[in-house]
Amino acid sequence: MGITLEKLSERLELKFSGYGETILTHVCGLENINQGGLSYITNPNELANLPTPAGIFDSRKRQLSDIEISPQAAIIVPSDLKSKSHNLLFSDDPMLHHCLAAEILHPGTTRSQKISVQANLGDNVKLGKNVTIDGCAVVYDNVSIGDNTVIHAGTVIMNGSTIGNDCLIYPNVTIREESSIGNRVILHPGVVIGADGFGFFQRDGKNLKIPQVGGVVIEDDVEIGANTTIDRARFTQTVIGRGSKLDNLIHIAHNVELGEDSLIAAQSGIAGSTKTGSHLMMGGQSGVRDNLVLGSKVTLLARTLVTSKTNDNEIVAGMPSRPLHVWRKVQALINSLDSLFKRIKRLEDSQKEENKG
Amino acid sequence: MGITLEKLSERLELKFSGYGETILTHVCGLENINQGGLSYITNPNELANLPTPAGIFDSRKRQLSDIEISPQAAIIVPSDLKSKSHNLLFSDDPMLHHCLAAEILHPGTTRSQKISVQANLGDNVKLGKNVTIDGCAVVYDNVSIGDNTVIHAGTVIMNGSTIGNDCLIYPNVTIREESSIGNRVILHPGVVIGADGFGFFQRDGKNLKIPQVGGVVIEDDVEIGANTTIDRARFTQTVIGRGSKLDNLIHIAHNVELGEDSLIAAQSGIAGSTKTGSHLMMGGQSGVRDNLVLGSKVTLLARTLVTSKTNDNEIVAGMPSRPLHVWRKVQALINSLDSLFKRIKRLEDSQKEENKG
Amino acid sequence: MGITLEKLSERLELKFSGYGETILTHVCGLENINQGGLSYITNPNELANLPTPAGIFDSRKRQLSDIEISPQAAIIVPSDLKSKSHNLLFSDDPMLHHCLAAEILHPGTTRSQKISVQANLGDNVKLGKNVTIDGCAVVYDNVSIGDNTVIHAGTVIMNGSTIGNDCLIYPNVTIREESSIGNRVILHPGVVIGADGFGFFQRDGKNLKIPQVGGVVIEDDVEIGANTTIDRARFTQTVIGRGSKLDNLIHIAHNVELGEDSLIAAQSGIAGSTKTGSHLMMGGQSGVRDNLVLGSKVTLLARTLVTSKTNDNEIVAGMPSRPLHVWRKVQALINSLDSLFKRIKRLEDSQKEENKG
Repeated sequence: MGITLEKLSERLELKFSGYGETILTHVCGLENINQGGLSYITNPNELANLPTPAGIFDSRKRQLSDIEISPQAAIIVPSDLKSKSHNLLFSDDPMLHHCLAAEILHPGTTRSQKISVQANLGDNVKLGKNVTIDGCAVVYDNVSIGDNTVIHAGTVIMNGSTIGNDCLIYPNVTIREESSIGNRVILHPGVVIGADGFGFFQRDGKNLKIPQVGGVVIEDDVEIGANTTIDRARFTQTVIGRGSKLDNLIHIAHNVELGEDSLIAAQSGIAGSTKTGSHLMMGGQSGVRDNLVLGSKVTLLARTLVTSKTNDNEIVAGMPSRPLHVWRKVQALINSLDSLFKRIKRLEDSQKEENKG
Repeated sequence: MGITLEKLSERLELKFSGYGETILTHVCGLENINQGGLSYITNPNELANLPTPAGIFDSRKRQLSDIEISPQAAIIVPSDLKSKSHNLLFSDDPMLHHCLAAEILHPGTTRSQKISVQANLGDNVKLGKNVTIDGCAVVYDNVSIGDNTVIHAGTVIMNGSTIGNDCLIYPNVTIREESSIGNRVILHPGVVIGADGFGFFQRDGKNLKIPQVGGVVIEDDVEIGANTTIDRARFTQTVIGRGSKLDNLIHIAHNVELGEDSLIAAQSGIAGSTKTGSHLMMGGQSGVRDNLVLGSKVTLLARTLVTSKTNDNEIVAGMPSRPLHVWRKVQALINSLDSLFKRIKRLEDSQKEENKG
Repeated sequence: MGITLEKLSERLELKFSGYGETILTHVCGLENINQGGLSYITNPNELANLPTPAGIFDSRKRQLSDIEISPQAAIIVPSDLKSKSHNLLFSDDPMLHHCLAAEILHPGTTRSQKISVQANLGDNVKLGKNVTIDGCAVVYDNVSIGDNTVIHAGTVIMNGSTIGNDCLIYPNVTIREESSIGNRVILHPGVVIGADGFGFFQRDGKNLKIPQVGGVVIEDDVEIGANTTIDRARFTQTVIGRGSKLDNLIHIAHNVELGEDSLIAAQSGIAGSTKTGSHLMMGGQSGVRDNLVLGSKVTLLARTLVTSKTNDNEIVAGMPSRPLHVWRKVQALINSLDSLFKRIKRLEDSQKEENKG
């Protein structure tokens, strides 16, 4: 358990200073660094906010050498930073290397330890090399699963779905029939891919179901949070663009096409047939109406509800959504309403005075 | 795979024109109709917005005969529409017949292909005729399941619950004890029926649990979306009225009685003991407070929060909810606040001028 | 089935009056009390609102003796209340004793009836005494489960997690690796504990994952509602404080520390690294921004979004949140905006008149 500073520096291809035999066991933040810990600093100015050894925050500007940490710990620092008092790894991108180190120090956090196939496999299931399927996972007929993919316990993959290589499918996920999942996709527990879109029409006051015979495409490098649901399209495909990351308890309706590299925070939703550009950012509990087109690099603050077409690079807030500077002005005006009413009262009173006079 | 136009016309009991041997394989929209596709038109005016063969939208009013689509496709059209250039099916309700055709062309989308019973069945489980229970579904004691019902993998049905005929229960659903599910009910993956209502009382600053010993009744023809939760009542029954359709990630609290034929869009919620009339329509991310009574045919726009009694046929919006026309007026006034502040400033300035003068 | 009034009075250690041989079978509310039912009254004034025998509400102040209920039912009443016409149990805290009676009369509502171990157990799993693990539950390696704990079907507990004594884990729950669950914890169906926090950083427009190697601590006496998700911390621990109760479909982000004895209603969320005092109360669909500190006994009305530090005992509402009295005033002012615009128009008109004159 653990790896020496020297070995880690070799694996990360970074130079180090300090005691190479230091054994590192875990990644951590600077505020809780302890024996075996590997932390990082992206900016030397961060040091000003470091806790003192006594745990009391100190607002004086300090140097790295001021910090007392365990001699059995290490810090990844910008390449130009100097310090003789600590074990250091030098990087042009300390955050990136800290993440890479985390994968080395915590291999078990993203993999099932147990490689056993007690799965319920249907007919004509195609498995790549080195596939893991845990107990009580159920794979229906005509499913294809790529190399190195891990399917955890309790997950159900229905007929004709395709899963790519190097995917990590956590427990109790449901993938409905004919879904297409790319490579390096992570689905957290309870995710539902490909449930029927919400489509009904009324005849004589009764709701009749509009069949949802389309599918879902989850492109490469997508990650989807716990209990999030992505509905299948009516005729065509609901698409989650490459590299997009969705948090927990999100709803993506039928026929949505989400652009690449988007980030959607928890409990947000996108209604049916809306299409977004790349790099959409949605704050928590936000939403987008149906049948809209959003440009690329659109940002929604938390709890925003977008109800109309939004152009590239717009930042919007509120319900209904307004450009951020407008929303802020509106909030300020609302906060001033009380004084406004008083000013009007004053005007009216003085006018009455005049009329008397 | 596929069915001829002539055979389909027989099964739908519709007249057709064109080449009866055309093989139809799937339903689709007009904008993506291709070989084997069956689309529909509800209104001849829709044709004005059809894509041209080159895929470029054309705003000129066009006739059906102007459209070039694959000769191996067909369209369901209103009975009075004439065209010699396409395969047509004539209907008084093209949308309805298109949905019926979808069930014929896509039987696999609503049924498990695999009829296997590897289930974990408890004691005294009563199964109707032609029941499907997939692998790793678990049925506890004293459960009853009606004819033709399909229980998918990973679903758990706890003690004493009753499921009707022709139900479709998708994977990883949980039905708690003593729940009652009607006929032709569809539960999407991850649905939870009958979890304890959220009831606590405090003694000495500690939260004590109020036992939730009531049940849940899901009436006939209800459909419930992925990861939606319906809590059991404290003493009596939480009721989801016949024919109501709920989208994904919805919360229905204990003792709610939801009227028949309602439609609730995703991520909405109804708090405890609220009772609604029939044909409630809730937009996405909307909510209703606890202990309210709503009339029938009440409509909530997206993100509305209803905080008071609402009468028949009301359309409400906003938080707290207001009648739609009031909410729209308020939004317009809020958008004019900036000019309002300027007008007041002007009034004040001119009054100062007067006072000087 | 059922217990006599006399036996129940012994088990609850309460005095009774009436016919001790009355058989009680279930708890119920006064409005639906029937044969075998046990109800309660906390305040004699409640009687004014009791239904008459005909089911018609009657606003006259009435005495308990006015009520006609089945002679085979009973009511728990405050100790000072007198009545000869009913079977009564006398208590200083009728609600509390009614809840205790519910546990006696409805043992099956909180326990799996079937004590069978057909579980999928990994290596080095430590089970306490009297543990129940239902079929198709999967326990990975190095998990520890305390005495009397019930793990229902379809639940998956990943490597190295620890579950305390007397826990009730409903079906289809997922507990990710290295999670720590205290004693007397209830997890409702579909709960996900310990999914990765939502952490990404961008390089060249691509979202790179920040490993989430921390854990989750669920302290004693916590109850978590259906399909709620609690994310694991980045480095340290996400904490749900002792005695806190969470409703359905709630999102608790990574590194949140929720204080003890809190109550959070459905569909609410707390964003990353926010720390709250004890006795937080959150109304439905409310939220708290990331990286905030909230005092103790803070209350959020439904749909509130807290965006800034909030002190002890504050009651807040709206989005962004304001103190309740401010929010109410703002709502009243918004409702008066229409008249405000008219008053300004009048002022302007009369000023024009003056200028003319």
